[in-house]
Amino acid sequence: MKIAVLGTGGGARAHIARLHELGHEVVVGTRDPQATLARTEPDMMGNPPFGQWVADHPGVELRTFGDAAAEGELVISGIDGINAVAALTAIADRLAGKTLVDYAVPFVYNPDIEHPWPTPWGVMPTFDPCDSDSLGEQIQRALPDTKVVKGFVTQEQTTVVDPQAVAGGDHTMFIAGDHADAKQAVTALLRSYGWTDILDLGGIVSARGMEMYAHLHSAIGFALGFGSPFGIKVMR
Amino acid sequence: MKIAVLGTGGGARAHIARLHELGHEVVVGTRDPQATLARTEPDMMGNPPFGQWVADHPGVELRTFGDAAAEGELVISGIDGINAVAALTAIADRLAGKTLVDYAVPFVYNPDIEHPWPTPWGVMPTFDPCDSDSLGEQIQRALPDTKVVKGFVTQEQTTVVDPQAVAGGDHTMFIAGDHADAKQAVTALLRSYGWTDILDLGGIVSARGMEMYAHLHSAIGFALGFGSPFGIKVMR
Repeated sequence: MKIAVLGTGGGARAHIARLHELGHEVVVGTRDPQATLARTEPDMMGNPPFGQWVADHPGVELRTFGDAAAEGELVISGIDGINAVAALTAIADRLAGKTLVDYAVPFVYNPDIEHPWPTPWGVMPTFDPCDSDSLGEQIQRALPDTKVVKGFVTQEQTTVVDPQAVAGGDHTMFIAGDHADAKQAVTALLRSYGWTDILDLGGIVSARGMEMYAHLHSAIGFALGFGSPFGIKVMR
Repeated sequence: MKIAVLGTGGGARAHIARLHELGHEVVVGTRDPQATLARTEPDMMGNPPFGQWVADHPGVELRTFGDAAAEGELVISGIDGINAVAALTAIADRLAGKTLVDYAVPFVYNPDIEHPWPTPWGVMPTFDPCDSDSLGEQIQRALPDTKVVKGFVTQEQTTVVDPQAVAGGDHTMFIAGDHADAKQAVTALLRSYGWTDILDLGGIVSARGMEMYAHLHSAIGFALGFGSPFGIKVMR
């Protein structure tokens, strides 16, 4: 399948590499391909410059967001929460009729918010939107002709593409969206990644709970020791 | 041990019955004992009137919040989120020096918020406080001389008092608080309930993630079928 990955951060790279491994054609979207390739500094999460990463991953094609989206049969958006709605709205016509997976946590890193937690980011992130709305819902409203699926958001993306790395794969992936066929396509991709326990949480409104879980995810991560891979499993 | 349970709703009743079973002395607090016993209608969650329940549970002593708190060596607060800070602040002197477990989700049931989810409550609850504060932190700030532990909040209380009812007890309980000795006391109580996997999430600030998980908890509950008992387990 030809899959578009929008974004060049650590999460996007995890998907790109794994999709290649699974034999998919991958086209990568970024705001400005020349600028992305020209960067020489690590990004805010400490990932090496994308141009350097690409040199080690032959076959990765870099396009604008719109050109990549137009080429993908399935689109995975790794655009960060702050920029996602504007960036995707600008290419709405290229996304019409397609399935788009959004995995962003709509975190805002506000240096003015006092933070009692020793986060690796130094500040305590908060959510925008939060509680009575979600990024998943905002994207679906902004792209009424696109089938938006919220998924991959309750794990690190390195875990999403390699679930077996945690507890032999015995943990739960959540998805939500208003379009059953789109959720089926995403479920098929997840099974190819190795997921066996995929729980459909219904409509895109469930993106609220999936996104807001991020604070508990962070707290569990700090308790276990930052960097320890883990997952949560729904025990019935 | 003499344990005070503040509140007379379904969650409080689950703790009262289980604590009796374990041989503890239990004293129950309510705003107005006469009014509570005089009620003849089910509460908003459909629980039968407390007076009727008490008739089937001999040995339950009903007091005001303050009198119950003063008698308990350990205090479990089942006061709902909307009322908890005011009700507990009013009896701060009776709670000084004690360990208090708060398990409330600070849900607000606002009938004006359009709700696409088929909740049993008819409306979509939202959180107050949310994201940059939590009920657990508010209670700790309001009661600086009390050792507040947030716990029991990521499960139904019927599951909290009987973890073996889900997956043979193989799921995770979270606690958070600023006082290590208080968390030890709560951990001992949880072990007597049957919990084996108890994860300490650090300071009371982690109450944010624990409370905000409630939306995901609801979504999982709806997906599995409302009323199906479940738990989440942190898989390492």
